[in-house]
Amino acid sequence: MALLKTQSKDSSAASSTEANRANLRSTTAQAEPRSPRRLPKTPKPSVATELGNLLDGPHAAFRQELREFINDPELFPHPDLSVAEQRAHTFNNLAKVRDFGGFQKGLRRDNGGPGKPILSTFTLEGLAWVDGSLAIKSGVQWGLWGGALDQLGTERHIEWVQKAASLELPGCFAMTERGHGSDVQSLETTANYDPETDEFIINTPSDTAVKNYIGNAAQDGRAAVVFTQLMTPESDGRTHGVHAIIVPIRDEQGNALPGITLGDHGHKGGLVGVDNGTLRFDNVHVPRVNLLNRFADVDENGRYSSPIENPNARFFTMLGTLIRGRMGVAGAAGAATEASLDIAVRYANRRRQFEGATGAEKHLIDHRQHRRRLLIPLARSYALHLLHNQILERYQEMNDSQEAGSWSVTTPTEEQKYASREMESLAGAIKAAQTQHAIRTIQECREACGGAGYMSENRLTTYRADSDVFATFEGDNTVLIQMVGKNLLTAYGRAMNDMSPWDTVRYAATTATEVVRRRTGFTTRLQGLVDLVNPNEASLFDAVYQAKLIDDRAQSVLLSLVRRIQPARKADKVQAAAIVDQCQDHLIAAGWARVDTLLVQAMIEAEDRLEVGSLARQVFEQLRHLFVLSTLVEHAGWYQEHNLLPAGRMKAARAAINDLVDSLAPWSVVLVDAFGLPSEVSNIPMLTEAGVDPLRD
Amino acid sequence: MALLKTQSKDSSAASSTEANRANLRSTTAQAEPRSPRRLPKTPKPSVATELGNLLDGPHAAFRQELREFINDPELFPHPDLSVAEQRAHTFNNLAKVRDFGGFQKGLRRDNGGPGKPILSTFTLEGLAWVDGSLAIKSGVQWGLWGGALDQLGTERHIEWVQKAASLELPGCFAMTERGHGSDVQSLETTANYDPETDEFIINTPSDTAVKNYIGNAAQDGRAAVVFTQLMTPESDGRTHGVHAIIVPIRDEQGNALPGITLGDHGHKGGLVGVDNGTLRFDNVHVPRVNLLNRFADVDENGRYSSPIENPNARFFTMLGTLIRGRMGVAGAAGAATEASLDIAVRYANRRRQFEGATGAEKHLIDHRQHRRRLLIPLARSYALHLLHNQILERYQEMNDSQEAGSWSVTTPTEEQKYASREMESLAGAIKAAQTQHAIRTIQECREACGGAGYMSENRLTTYRADSDVFATFEGDNTVLIQMVGKNLLTAYGRAMNDMSPWDTVRYAATTATEVVRRRTGFTTRLQGLVDLVNPNEASLFDAVYQAKLIDDRAQSVLLSLVRRIQPARKADKVQAAAIVDQCQDHLIAAGWARVDTLLVQAMIEAEDRLEVGSLARQVFEQLRHLFVLSTLVEHAGWYQEHNLLPAGRMKAARAAINDLVDSLAPWSVVLVDAFGLPSEVSNIPMLTEAGVDPLRD
Ligand SMILES: Cc1cc2nc3c(=O)[nH]c(=O)nc-3n(C[C@H](O)[C@H](O)[C@H](O)COP(=O)(O)OP(=O)(O)OC[C@H]3O[C@@H](n4cnc5c(N)ncnc54)[C@H](O)[C@@H]3O)c2cc1C
Ligand SMILES: Cc1cc2nc3c(=O)[nH]c(=O)nc-3n(C[C@H](O)[C@H](O)[C@H](O)COP(=O)(O)OP(=O)(O)OC[C@H]3O[C@@H](n4cnc5c(N)ncnc54)[C@H](O)[C@@H]3O)c2cc1C
Repeated sequence: MALLKTQSKDSSAASSTEANRANLRSTTAQAEPRSPRRLPKTPKPSVATELGNLLDGPHAAFRQELREFINDPELFPHPDLSVAEQRAHTFNNLAKVRDFGGFQKGLRRDNGGPGKPILSTFTLEGLAWVDGSLAIKSGVQWGLWGGALDQLGTERHIEWVQKAASLELPGCFAMTERGHGSDVQSLETTANYDPETDEFIINTPSDTAVKNYIGNAAQDGRAAVVFTQLMTPESDGRTHGVHAIIVPIRDEQGNALPGITLGDHGHKGGLVGVDNGTLRFDNVHVPRVNLLNRFADVDENGRYSSPIENPNARFFTMLGTLIRGRMGVAGAAGAATEASLDIAVRYANRRRQFEGATGAEKHLIDHRQHRRRLLIPLARSYALHLLHNQILERYQEMNDSQEAGSWSVTTPTEEQKYASREMESLAGAIKAAQTQHAIRTIQECREACGGAGYMSENRLTTYRADSDVFATFEGDNTVLIQMVGKNLLTAYGRAMNDMSPWDTVRYAATTATEVVRRRTGFTTRLQGLVDLVNPNEASLFDAVYQAKLIDDRAQSVLLSLVRRIQPARKADKVQAAAIVDQCQDHLIAAGWARVDTLLVQAMIEAEDRLEVGSLARQVFEQLRHLFVLSTLVEHAGWYQEHNLLPAGRMKAARAAINDLVDSLAPWSVVLVDAFGLPSEVSNIPMLTEAGVDPLRD
Repeated sequence: MALLKTQSKDSSAASSTEANRANLRSTTAQAEPRSPRRLPKTPKPSVATELGNLLDGPHAAFRQELREFINDPELFPHPDLSVAEQRAHTFNNLAKVRDFGGFQKGLRRDNGGPGKPILSTFTLEGLAWVDGSLAIKSGVQWGLWGGALDQLGTERHIEWVQKAASLELPGCFAMTERGHGSDVQSLETTANYDPETDEFIINTPSDTAVKNYIGNAAQDGRAAVVFTQLMTPESDGRTHGVHAIIVPIRDEQGNALPGITLGDHGHKGGLVGVDNGTLRFDNVHVPRVNLLNRFADVDENGRYSSPIENPNARFFTMLGTLIRGRMGVAGAAGAATEASLDIAVRYANRRRQFEGATGAEKHLIDHRQHRRRLLIPLARSYALHLLHNQILERYQEMNDSQEAGSWSVTTPTEEQKYASREMESLAGAIKAAQTQHAIRTIQECREACGGAGYMSENRLTTYRADSDVFATFEGDNTVLIQMVGKNLLTAYGRAMNDMSPWDTVRYAATTATEVVRRRTGFTTRLQGLVDLVNPNEASLFDAVYQAKLIDDRAQSVLLSLVRRIQPARKADKVQAAAIVDQCQDHLIAAGWARVDTLLVQAMIEAEDRLEVGSLARQVFEQLRHLFVLSTLVEHAGWYQEHNLLPAGRMKAARAAINDLVDSLAPWSVVLVDAFGLPSEVSNIPMLTEAGVDPLRD
């Protein structure tokens, strides 16, 4: 493995003396080898290309097409317009997106597509580089509405699928209700089968059952996939569980159809160009065949059937087919973050403030704190981008097997079940991680651009406002990250999303060993190396030792969680609930720690694809150091409380972070160039008007 | 001191056994006494009144008046309106603010006011409870424009002062230029005295010299206080430094006056109701008497004079009179945070999601993580509120002495100089602290309210967007907190704000002892107690030990900073600059650590004003624990790297935080009730419509 051979010289030289110090309780910061050799002060633009290829991954050609389509000034948002005007602007741009054709690539072969959801996700991401509203409006149309039709429907819904794809029929995905958002299984809208008319009667039984926040509902949607509690005469007033049914809501003139009451949420904290609204159904009749029947059906006699027996498993299989939306939001968050870093880093290299030692004013990037505030998040953005790619590629492979028939969605093998659950967990992890990072980083970028950063013309505040809600929709982050933690705990032995404490304890792995055996953090290859590392000898800059340190936290948090949860297995429901609630922050910590394990692995694997000894690899290596060491320092207390890293090494990590940002600073523009953002993104007054150094060409 | 007698029972009982464990390296979490006794589960509403009185402080009567004025639905913002409409709405409400008369109370007696800036600051805060735009627009009119006239002008400017106060003359405070924001001393606009006409000629010599982001400039301002490099014939093309001059900019019809070019920044990331714009001067002539001449004058012969000889001291004396604006922004940030917590805490007590053990759905506050995410910031908000009060009261006292003539602003005694600098440091500290806390906490509140939190009608996103810029204006936070750090380093031996590294090292205290001797962290009384604490015996819940722990960090960070800076005293300018830049993150850490010292002291002092043994005091004590322990945990790595708190105690602190949020949760509504926000603030759909439990009365 090339990695092990390419530790930078200073660190490997020093590691022999390290062992002697290993048992000293407090080595000073100076004692740790200062591994990161300073990079050359003059950046080499070709490194941006090499890093760019790494970030683009195997679908570089499609990404390039996308970039060209997107680099269009007309696609950018206009936050100064009224709500109505912003909505119109967004809607008008949808036709361009349709013509580009990226979203249609996600359709299943059964529905005439090539079955490449990875490409539709990239498309969503690309749009988020320029306009969050356009990205999310597209996501509603083709990902949620079109996606539900494609994924939950069968041959009898092909016409719907095609009308959604062509934009002939704008539609909604109507799941959330006023009373229930995160807890979808408790929603109240009913669909009662009426054998007399062979129809479903869709009804909103209470004020809390009104569908809320639904994209496309306020204005453009003409139909909706409505999530309902399905009932048949034989179910006798009890529900078969949540099922999705197509319900037309507006006529061609845009008027509400009989029995439908539509509401408008008006102005929101962002995504102003998306028309979110409410839906209420007063015993609305729709044909039986409007039930999206891929996973369950009702025949003309009112008999309910499903290839998936367990209702819980059925529900989560349905939801599982929709996780691409979650990955799309993760990607959109990553894109908005990259765009913001692109802008803030360029500004930092052009804006000057305060005289330096030589009499000339310093660029912002020449201030240590400015390097820290931009480059530390930038390193994490790289890690997230690479992990995101990995997860998407894996998701695409899973889809390919399904399309090829070697993997049945309804009757998967045990191994496939396990793999699906792991996939759902990964999607939740990357969604929570990317969106949390986006909210923090875009804000940091805004502040790092001073007053200019607050002017809407410079885009940062719009990226910020639009991505704010990414923490909430497609799965609230607090709920999702618990799901990640819980899946680790139950070692994927249980369907996702179910938040009930009782099930958590019932299905929690019986022993700590079982958890560790079944959890899949690292690949076998990396794990093999990690198992061999000797912490007393390894340098802080050794990739494998870094992986071990990061994963030690994940393992240890998880094991102590198992120990806390285990007593609950013998408790009654009430006690079990109390114990699980008391572990909630612990469960969340386990989820987040898992994310970091995945991130460090993604970085290490990507590094291995860069030519050994190349400058690009040296630069990337320093990004990896920066990501890992800043993650260690963020959890410095934890590491010391658990005796995993002595004070001296932690101090060395802190010092190295400063060295790394100093070393990487001259490369900062190269690092954002590698994202390959459309040039229009940074074509903003703040970067062109007086007050910044002129553009170099 | 009552404090020492009222440690809750469990902790004092346990402290005798503590000593035995003190030398064990890793006591487990269970070993630390679990001091916080759980509060009664049924909250007592009268506690809100007692805590409210504590938060209101000595000016409760004025605050009450203010609350009544502010509880007016018409004062709230309308983020759905166009930019022009929002500006009109804000401007129209200004008349109401004028009639209330709060801002006029800040005027100096010389200008016909009562000299009570504390009341004008409270007024700004009160407005920020309801509308950031209205607060800042008022702040521009009466704080910046009116305030500069009042503070920098003399008897010859009384008419201007009065026209500003009465709103007859809306005006601007034009300091920032496109090229220089944080570094005000480098601004480029010139004012040349022309003896021929007895006028100043105001000029914008370059594109970077255009005044930028100026409030009231885009639309309503009719004149501006313009900050210029002042030159007289005898100064021979060199500047006397930055001075403020009144320049009319628009006629009564709102047209730009000759030689003035006005620009409009249009839509911003928030504060949309404030019209920020640009100003450019093409050799504009204004009468000599327009120079605000309290601290420097030019006579009709063009002779420059000033009672303050040192130009740097003169400049910072001028700026020093304006720090109330900084405190106003701090207060506005605090107010927006309190309003957001008020909303999110009420929602958490009414919204239900996910079934609990008993079958009923749990309130959000019944989820451990939800308690943590709201109550930890709430505890810090209390601390900030109390420190803010302290600083304002002290500022008012300083003003009273100045008004009474026992303190000359131009020729202060050494002790007064020292006190002024300390005051400026406190203002910077509270501004950075409140605004940083606001940005983070309001976002957390938004996310904690799920989808509802993103709808503009529920106010949170507007509080968030409006307070975003508080990090930037009235002193960028990164720059301010460095100033705080630097002032500690130079032990207040040097004028403020000057960021030059050379001066930093030249004026850095010569010895560590000198720093410690001159720094004033705690009051003598508290310091005396702190000096007596024995860390091996004290409980983690002992107020004085808590103070010591928090301050230990401040002292230790500062001392190590001194040690790093000292070598620079012998270095040349270039080396010195490099050393200071390398210490920038350290300097910033010193500033933030100082803030925490001030906060813990404010909490301890306030606690002492609550009746011993009362329920209010018990509740408050737990808030103090929560604030202190969460601050320790935030810096857990640092404490362990410096051997100040062993792993076992840190684990105990983590566990106690969970106990504390559990204990305080039933009191959460009482805690926000104590802020005494106008009821209209929480009169929002999210808290009244279906989907939440009905209001109890
Ligand atoms: C702009 C926008 C567009 C949307 N578009 C659509 C759409 O097109 N179609 C659609 O169906 N829906 C849509 N939604 C709804 C979205 O999916 C929900 O808002 C989301 O699922 C959260 O649900 P909620 O708002 O009811 O929050 P809740 O579930 O009530 O959660 C509120 C808060 O409580 C916390 N919380 C909840 N449960 C727990 C727990 N167990 N432990 C700890 N904390 C908890 C959460 O972290 C959150 O902070 C949209 C929402 C928005 C804002
Ligand atoms: C909405 C709004 C209203 C305003 N109203 C007014 C007004 O009425 N009148 C007026 O005169 N001005 C006004 N301002 C201007 C405001 O005071 C400035 O924006 C502020 O002082 C920051 O200056 P700047 O924007 O030039 O940022 P810069 O000074 O260029 O700073 C940019 C970034 O660099 C960082 N930085 C700068 N120096 C250092 C350093 N030494 N070390 C580390 N980092 C550093 C900062 O942290 C910041 O993030 C307003 C601004 C806004 C946005």
